[in-house]
Order: sequence, then structure tokens, then C-alpha cells
Amino acid sequence: MTETDDAARHAAKMARIKAARDRMMEGKTDRKGLVIVHDGKGKGKSSSGFGMILRCIAHGMPCAVVQFIKGAWDTGERRILTEHFGDLCQFHAMGEGFTWETQDRARDIAMAEAGWEKARELIRDPEIRMVLLDEINIALRYDYLDVDEVVRFLLEEKPEMTHVVLTGRNAKPELIELADLVTEMTMVKHPFRDGIKAQKGVEF
Amino acid sequence: MTETDDAARHAAKMARIKAARDRMMEGKTDRKGLVIVHDGKGKGKSSSGFGMILRCIAHGMPCAVVQFIKGAWDTGERRILTEHFGDLCQFHAMGEGFTWETQDRARDIAMAEAGWEKARELIRDPEIRMVLLDEINIALRYDYLDVDEVVRFLLEEKPEMTHVVLTGRNAKPELIELADLVTEMTMVKHPFRDGIKAQKGVEF
Repeated sequence: MTETDDAARHAAKMARIKAARDRMMEGKTDRKGLVIVHDGKGKGKSSSGFGMILRCIAHGMPCAVVQFIKGAWDTGERRILTEHFGDLCQFHAMGEGFTWETQDRARDIAMAEAGWEKARELIRDPEIRMVLLDEINIALRYDYLDVDEVVRFLLEEKPEMTHVVLTGRNAKPELIELADLVTEMTMVKHPFRDGIKAQKGVEF
Repeated sequence: MTETDDAARHAAKMARIKAARDRMMEGKTDRKGLVIVHDGKGKGKSSSGFGMILRCIAHGMPCAVVQFIKGAWDTGERRILTEHFGDLCQFHAMGEGFTWETQDRARDIAMAEAGWEKARELIRDPEIRMVLLDEINIALRYDYLDVDEVVRFLLEEKPEMTHVVLTGRNAKPELIELADLVTEMTMVKHPFRDGIKAQKGVEF
């Protein structure tokens, strides 16, 4: 396979996703469930996802969070969401830390697959109005999950009015093509270069 | 005054802010209160600010929100934060909608000044660990508030361990220069172009 073949195949794939997306948009009313992607190296991808979950809770909309990567250490939001809003917001921490911490690819893949299974169950439930798939882009980037399956599922099985938010840097192009709303968080300035550590309330 | 004078004055001003910032950083330990700016045309500036407030609450850190612009209509987060976490998080909605809604510049300025007065009081209180100044960049952009005064206050009067988060597009360069952590939210794709309206849980 040449590079040209590769590029042509990629372009054809993107065109298929765009066509499927356009069909889905045809005759849409002015409201629909959105596929939302938070990409980029800057901060705010996860925290704005959690901010949107807080908004849903404020509106009394049932919602859910699946954490794909940070499950083992990012417990603050989980505790507060389950303690105060467990009736409206389900929380599933399926990750066990970043792969360079666990150093066990087979286990990472098994965890990611379990997270995706849970995500499909939550998204299929039409009562749930927003599902946040936190850091799923990391699992997709390392091919712990198959992006084609994720795209297919969102196109074919997501209920019309359900919002799905996917966060994490290096979002796959297939996902960008499918999404309705994509924001890239760009790092302009970062305090780590001044020797400041990650801090409570800011990074975790 | 020529354009060259203007540019030179601007450069000198930025250099002064940078020097003051560098002095502040000298001999810093590995933790400090950060000045954080969320800029850009993309989504997530306010919602990630609220996500960080949620994190502070999760850690039991007292915090506060001052809304400069959206006070009149963005009530969901306010209600839920005050109802559930009023003991940890103060909420002050000082804005009365965007200026193109109120069309009363004198009133906008008075509201912005009242918001800034409240913000100074909250930031000065060393018990409060994070203050979110939501959409203050809009008030600064329209010169409802004086950016030099805001920069001076943050440099000279902010307690060392207090985080201050300033959101809104078109952040002033003086503020970017001062800040420790700047993220630009860039719009890659937006559903409004497909005729989709602002929706609950996503935009408000």
C-alpha cells in the first residue's frame, strides 16, 4: 500500500462519515443531541465537561460520566457528584491511571473496553440526556478502542436528543468529522514551566 | 502621538508587568495561587471555570463566583451551587445581560464596578481559595473596568495562595502578560451553522 492509497482511503472514509452526518442532519429541527469533542493540549477539556454536567444537573436532566483514564486518582468530582446528585448523575470510573503508570497494555485495553461497554449502555438509555466520556480520546489514540466502532455507534445508535461529550487530547480525525461541536483548548501559558506543581482545585 | 509611540508605550507597559510578575515568582515554592485566564471564541471558558469551582468544592476549599455579564439569565449553576454548597461557595451575579440587551452603557459600567468591588472583597479574604470572575474579560474589553487597576490589584493585593480565574473572549494583553496559566478555547466546529439553537446543559 502506497502513501497515496492511504491518503485516498482516508479521504474516502472521511467523506463517508460526513455524508452519514449530513443525512442525520437533514430535516432536523432546531434542537438535537450533540456530539461534542474537547480536544487540544490546553487545560479545560475535562473541567468544562464537568461544568456541562453541572449545568445538566441544574436543569434536572439525568446525565452520566464514564472516566476512561483517570479513574484511579481523580476522585474529587466523583465523590461530590455521587454524594449530592446520585439520583440525577451516574458516575463510572473505569480507568486505572495512565498507561505509563500501569504499564500493562492488556489490562488498559480490558479497562477501556469495559468503559465503552458501560458508555454504550448509558447512551442507549433515552432517559439519560448527556453522557460525558472523559479522556476517551486517550483510549482511542492508543487504539485501546476502535474509533470506527465508536463513530458507527454514535451515528447509528445514539438517541436523537442525547448529548455525548468526548474529551482528551489528540482526538481522532474520524471523531472530529462526526462531531457537531469541536473545541480545541490551546495552551498559551502554563505555570509548570515556572516550577509550579499540579494543585488542588486547578488540576485535580 | 504616532503609532510607533503607541507600540513603544505598549511594549514598555508589558515589560513592566512581566518584571513585576517575575519578581513575584522569585523564590516561589512549588505551590502558589495562580492567575488563570480562559480566552478565545470557542466554548468551555465559563464551563471549565465552573468545573474548577466544583473541584474546589470537592476538596472542601472555600471559593466564590462573581458573574459580570450573564447574571440575568444564566441561573442554573447559581441555584445549584448556592442550594447545595452555599457554605463553601459564594455566588454573586452582578451582570444584567449583555450590553446589546440592556443598551444602557452607564448602567453596565455601574454593574461592572459593583462586580469588581465585590471581587476585590472576595479576593482579599484569605480564607477563600479560588475566585471565578466569570466573563470579566467582556467588561474589560468594553472598558467598563480599567485593566490597569485589575492588573495592579492582582499583582499587589491578591493573597499568595489564592487562585483567580478570569474568563471571557478578547482577554486584554495586559492580563495575558500577568497570568500564570492561559488557555485559549478555539472553535473548530459549531452546530449553530447547522441551524441548531443554544440548548440546555450545553450553552446554559
